[in-house]
Amino acid sequence: MMKVSKVLHVHPRAESLRIREKLIKHYRLGVVALAGLIAHGRGEAFDYLIGEKTMKSTFKAIKAAASAMLQAKYPVISVNGNTAALVANDLVKLAEVTNAKIEVNLFYRSLERELAIKRILEAAGAREVLGVGEAASAQIPEVCSERRRVDPQGILRADVVLVPLEDGDRTQALRKMGKIVIAIDLNPLSRTAQYASITIIDNVIRALPALVREAEKMRNEETEKLREILSEFNNREVLANAIKHINLRLSELAQKGFHIFEDNETS
Amino acid sequence: MMKVSKVLHVHPRAESLRIREKLIKHYRLGVVALAGLIAHGRGEAFDYLIGEKTMKSTFKAIKAAASAMLQAKYPVISVNGNTAALVANDLVKLAEVTNAKIEVNLFYRSLERELAIKRILEAAGAREVLGVGEAASAQIPEVCSERRRVDPQGILRADVVLVPLEDGDRTQALRKMGKIVIAIDLNPLSRTAQYASITIIDNVIRALPALVREAEKMRNEETEKLREILSEFNNREVLANAIKHINLRLSELAQKGFHIFEDNETS
Repeated sequence: MMKVSKVLHVHPRAESLRIREKLIKHYRLGVVALAGLIAHGRGEAFDYLIGEKTMKSTFKAIKAAASAMLQAKYPVISVNGNTAALVANDLVKLAEVTNAKIEVNLFYRSLERELAIKRILEAAGAREVLGVGEAASAQIPEVCSERRRVDPQGILRADVVLVPLEDGDRTQALRKMGKIVIAIDLNPLSRTAQYASITIIDNVIRALPALVREAEKMRNEETEKLREILSEFNNREVLANAIKHINLRLSELAQKGFHIFEDNETS
Repeated sequence: MMKVSKVLHVHPRAESLRIREKLIKHYRLGVVALAGLIAHGRGEAFDYLIGEKTMKSTFKAIKAAASAMLQAKYPVISVNGNTAALVANDLVKLAEVTNAKIEVNLFYRSLERELAIKRILEAAGAREVLGVGEAASAQIPEVCSERRRVDPQGILRADVVLVPLEDGDRTQALRKMGKIVIAIDLNPLSRTAQYASITIIDNVIRALPALVREAEKMRNEETEKLREILSEFNNREVLANAIKHINLRLSELAQKGFHIFEDNETS
């Protein structure tokens, strides 16, 4: 088997390969689920379509998300295998800046995985990790996967929940419970994206650090100002912009792509 | 861990979950690589965008592909872990109908995986499987992954090569060697899709059975007729159509998606 490092210097999409290797490593460490690798691939495709950089309209969502978390009485960050593998440090920083709790919440739950994720978060500086083992003793209604299990000291009582890389079921259920749900999802058409209160359509690799920066900038703002940012935010606009953006990119890429053939026509 | 079968009846995209489970099973059997799971996820995203059914323009590519394989002097079907896991029976049928050789060709090559894939193909009825172990003694130029290794009795001397789920490097290299390359790739913008002679933009799950049916229908056609089909085929048109199709679907899905909010406005 050839080391990916050997092909990186020649590969046109080296960064994307590095992230892939990181997830594969964390699969072997018991942090990432096999289905998490497939989910990552879906994200890669959408990231490719949006151009692998944060869209302008996404910055609006990030600002609204920071403001929602800073205003929250009890904000909670939900963490799964992929996010722990990719952005553990930023998750912990965000929890500090916004005074949020961190809770492990998995589709494929096993105590080993929960503990592996907890270890990574603690190594990144987390002092408390909710939702591990017996602690996830509560259930949220109408969710049929293991994602229904939540910590009474975490997601259950939260008013604002950040759910990076979420499934649609739970986003809907959390909204029905009256919570503000902030999703990070690269697919603007997914149920998660559509049902969240605030949808950050971006790669977690870029979105989490941006969210930390924004929260740091805004942490001393007055509540009035924070409220204003949130009330002016329009998630439908963000979703619509992302789709327009992809449509435009596809047309551009198509034109660019077809230039390959101009000097070297093939049949 | 919850069995996927339990959520299938309630999940809006059950078929997609079944395929995922099949690939995960074949990862555990040593057939599919971890990177193959991520690659499958990318395919899922594009399949979702094209609407999870074969596009009209794709049928033209399938017809051209069948005609190219039936006309070929030495057609070869290149098989990797994902295709062996998902469509082994159809690969073997296609080889029979078009009188093609079957060769294992992997990005992450190991004798164990090659043998595991060979076993699956043999169980599906293959009498000969090229490219396993020492048999892959030749190299194709300008490919830096393990995919450069080919069988002198297979891809090296082929005039037509079917490469389902390919990487861009090798497609380019095979084209430069003067071969007709038929790719099956869900991403119309990938290098593979762009460099192939004939690009079938479809899920292998649907494309392979369709290709078998088409080859069966055409196997008794006169060479003149087969040549005509191929010479009239325009791959640029197929690629352009796929992108237009996705653009249209995105706009439609966006409109449909946003209807969710009509009765139940959220902020």
